[in-house]
Amino acid sequence: MPEISIRGRRMPESPIRKLAPYAEIAKKKGLKVYHLNIGQPDIKSPEIAIEAIKNIDLDIIEYGPSAGYESYRKKLAQFYTKQDVKVAFEDIMITTGGSEALLFALGSIMDPGDEVIIPEPFYANYHAFSEESSATVIPVISNIESGFTLPTIEEFEKAITPKTKAILICNPNNPTGYLYSESEINQLGELVKKHDLFLIADEVYREFIYDERDKHFSVMNLKGIEQNVIMIDSVSKRYSMCGARIGCMVTKNREVIAAAMKFAQARLCPPTIEQIACEAAIDTPQSYFDEVISEYKERRDTLISELNKIEGIIITTPKAAFYCIAQLPVDNTDDFAQWLLESYNSNGETVMVAPAGGFYSTPGVGLNQVRIAYVLKKEDLTRAVQILKDAIPIYNSEKNHLVLKSTAN
Amino acid sequence: MPEISIRGRRMPESPIRKLAPYAEIAKKKGLKVYHLNIGQPDIKSPEIAIEAIKNIDLDIIEYGPSAGYESYRKKLAQFYTKQDVKVAFEDIMITTGGSEALLFALGSIMDPGDEVIIPEPFYANYHAFSEESSATVIPVISNIESGFTLPTIEEFEKAITPKTKAILICNPNNPTGYLYSESEINQLGELVKKHDLFLIADEVYREFIYDERDKHFSVMNLKGIEQNVIMIDSVSKRYSMCGARIGCMVTKNREVIAAAMKFAQARLCPPTIEQIACEAAIDTPQSYFDEVISEYKERRDTLISELNKIEGIIITTPKAAFYCIAQLPVDNTDDFAQWLLESYNSNGETVMVAPAGGFYSTPGVGLNQVRIAYVLKKEDLTRAVQILKDAIPIYNSEKNHLVLKSTAN
Ligand SMILES: Cc1ncc(COP(=O)(O)O)c(C=O)c1O
Ligand SMILES: Cc1ncc(COP(=O)(O)O)c(C=O)c1O
Repeated sequence: MPEISIRGRRMPESPIRKLAPYAEIAKKKGLKVYHLNIGQPDIKSPEIAIEAIKNIDLDIIEYGPSAGYESYRKKLAQFYTKQDVKVAFEDIMITTGGSEALLFALGSIMDPGDEVIIPEPFYANYHAFSEESSATVIPVISNIESGFTLPTIEEFEKAITPKTKAILICNPNNPTGYLYSESEINQLGELVKKHDLFLIADEVYREFIYDERDKHFSVMNLKGIEQNVIMIDSVSKRYSMCGARIGCMVTKNREVIAAAMKFAQARLCPPTIEQIACEAAIDTPQSYFDEVISEYKERRDTLISELNKIEGIIITTPKAAFYCIAQLPVDNTDDFAQWLLESYNSNGETVMVAPAGGFYSTPGVGLNQVRIAYVLKKEDLTRAVQILKDAIPIYNSEKNHLVLKSTAN
Repeated sequence: MPEISIRGRRMPESPIRKLAPYAEIAKKKGLKVYHLNIGQPDIKSPEIAIEAIKNIDLDIIEYGPSAGYESYRKKLAQFYTKQDVKVAFEDIMITTGGSEALLFALGSIMDPGDEVIIPEPFYANYHAFSEESSATVIPVISNIESGFTLPTIEEFEKAITPKTKAILICNPNNPTGYLYSESEINQLGELVKKHDLFLIADEVYREFIYDERDKHFSVMNLKGIEQNVIMIDSVSKRYSMCGARIGCMVTKNREVIAAAMKFAQARLCPPTIEQIACEAAIDTPQSYFDEVISEYKERRDTLISELNKIEGIIITTPKAAFYCIAQLPVDNTDDFAQWLLESYNSNGETVMVAPAGGFYSTPGVGLNQVRIAYVLKKEDLTRAVQILKDAIPIYNSEKNHLVLKSTAN
C-alpha cells in the first residue's frame, strides 16, 4: 500500500472536532450536551439573503468568474468604504470562505520552509493552512495574565529569521476575544515595514465589538505599507451564514492579487447561489446588527459573571468576537473535556468545551485552558457554566482518587 | 515590497481564461463571439435541483459536516452502486467541486518534490493543483495520430523514478474526448500494483459517452489494488451545475480518507445550500440524461463533420466528454486564437478557441492544436466552424505577408 504524504500526516486534526465522537456517544445515551465548543452561531441569517435564495431565477447553475461576481465585488468595496476601509473592487477577490482566502494568501507568499509568525493562542486552522503550503508557524506567546494583549515587539523581533515572510494576526481574536488597539496595530505596521514582511490580518469578526468606546482598526488603514498588507474577511459570522462558504481576500498589492488569481482560476469559482445570497445580504439593515450585537453583549456578560463563580478560574472579559479562553483548576483539559462527555452528567445534561492546547503551537502550553464560545442563549449559558462548576471538583477528586490508587499499587 | 512566493510565480495561468480580455474587447467592439473554448454547458440544470433551492426551509445557513452531509453521502453511495461502482458512504468525501477533491487527493499523498505522472495533453489545472502541493508533474505524451490512446506501459515505466507517487488520468478525457478501454485501465492497474503507486482517476465526465458499444470502466472496479485507487467526481457536468461547487473524492483507502479529512476540517465544510440541491439532484430522472446525451452526440457529430471540411486539419472523433483536440494548419494557435479575437471577423462574428499548448506540460508540444468544446447548439457550432475555416487561410496569408515584409527589411 503506498504511503500518504508527510504533509498529510503532519496536518493537525481539528482540536474542536476531535471530541465529536464522544459527544455523539453521549447523545446516543440520551444526554443533553451544551455546546460551548463551536463557532456556529444560533443567530438567524438575514431574511434578505434567504429570500434571495428562494427567489433565484436561474435555469443553469453556471460557473461564475474566478474572482467572484463583479457586481458583488463592487458592492463589497462600497460596504468597506462606508466603514472607512477604502478599497476598490479590484482589491477584492471573492473566495470560498475566509478559509480559502487564508490558503490563497499563504500560498501566494510562502514557499516550503518559509516562516509565518503568529501570536498564540491562535485559530487552530492557521496551522493546517500553513502545513498545506509547507510553511512553518513560529508562535509568539500572548498571556492570559496580561489579557492576551499583543506580545511585545521585542518578542516578535526575536522570532524573525531570514525565512520569515509574514506575520498573521486575528483581530478581533479567536480564541481569546481580544481586540487589538490602533496603537498595537501601528506597532505591527512599523515592524512589518522595518523587516519588509507581509502582514495578514484575519478580520472575520470585525463586526462583533461590545463596548461603545472600542473601535476596530483595520490593517487596511495602515499608511505607507499598503503593499505589505492582506486582509481576510468572510460572511460566515457577519450574517450568520457559515454554510455559504463565501469570504474574500483584500489587498492593494496587485502582485499578490495576480498570484492568488492563479489559485482562484485553478479551482474555477466560488459557489454561485451563495454568492447571489451574499450580494443581497449587503443590504441587511443596521437594525439586524444592532440586535445581534446587543444579544452577544448580554451573552458575554452572562457568561463572564457565571464563569467568575468558578473557584480558581482565570479569565479576562473578551472585548470582541464570541469566544474567550478560561484557565480552569484542572491539570489537563483534553482529559477533562473527554471526561465531561464520557463519564459525567448532571440530571442528564453535560457540556462540551474545546481544550485550548490545540490553539497553541508551543507544546505543553495552554493545557489547563479551554476555549468557550458564547453562541448559546443566556439561559443555556448559565446552565452550562453551572454544570462546569459542579463538575470540576468531582473530576479533580476522581482523578486524585485514581492517582492515590495507582500510587498504592 | 515583500516578494510573492516562487510557487505563486510558477503557478500556471489558466490557458482557457487568459484570452478572456481579448474576448471582452471584441465584444465591446460589438462582435459576436462563439465560445468554443469553455467547459460551461448550456444545458439546463435538473428542475428537481432548482426546486430544492427555491424551497429551502432554513433560518440559518449553518456549517455542515466537513465530509459533507451524511444523507447526501449515503445517497451518492447508492447512486454509484447502481452503476456497479460498489462503495460505502464512508468511502466518499464531499468536496467543494472536483477541483478541491483533486487538491485534497494530491495534498494527502504528495510531498514537495514528489512526482505525479500524467498522460498529456491533460486538464490544465492538474498542473496548478500539483504546484499548490509543490509536487512535480511528469508528462507522458499521448499522440493525436494514434487518437490519444493510453501511452504504452513502457512509456510510463520510463517515467517512473523513486520520487513517483502517483499516476493521474482523466477518463473520459478532457481535453481529448478519449475514453480509456477496460483493457487500458487494467494495464494501468498492473503497473500501479507493480510499483505500489497511487492511481487517481478523474471521472467527472463519466456520464458523457456517445456510442452504445462503449462503456465507462471505473478505476474503482480494479481488483486487488483497492488501497491504491482514488476516484474524483463532480456534479458540475453531470447535472450542468458547475456553479454549485460540489464534487467528491472516493477511495477505499481509509488512510487517504483520514488525511483528506484533515484538509476538509481545516476548510470547515462544502457549501450548504448547494449540497441540498445536489442531494435532490440524485433523483433526476433517466430521461434527463437520455436527452442530454443525445443532444451532445448530435453536437459531436455536427462538429466533427464540419471540422473535417477544414483542409489540413487532423482530428479524431471524441468518444466521450464534450471536447476534442484539433490540429490546425497554422504554426501557433496562441497567436491564431488572439488574432481571431483581435483582428478578424466575418460579418461581425468571430470565435474563441483554447490554444492546446496549455494542456501540454512538455514545452513546444501541441502548439498547432486547439481544444474545442462542443457546448453550443448545433447551428452555432456549424457557424463557428465555418468562421474558423474561412479565417485560417486569411491568417496564414497575413502572417506570410508579415514574414515576407520583415525578411525584406
Ligand atoms: C478566526 C477565523 N478565521 C477564519 C475562519 C474561517 O471561516 P470561514 O471559512 O467560514 O469564512 C474562522 C471560522 O471559524 C475563524 O474563526
Ligand atoms: C477534467 C476535469 N476535472 C475536474 C474539473 C473540475 O470541475 P469542478 O471543480 O467544477 O467539479 C473539470 C472542470 O472543467 C474538468 O474538466
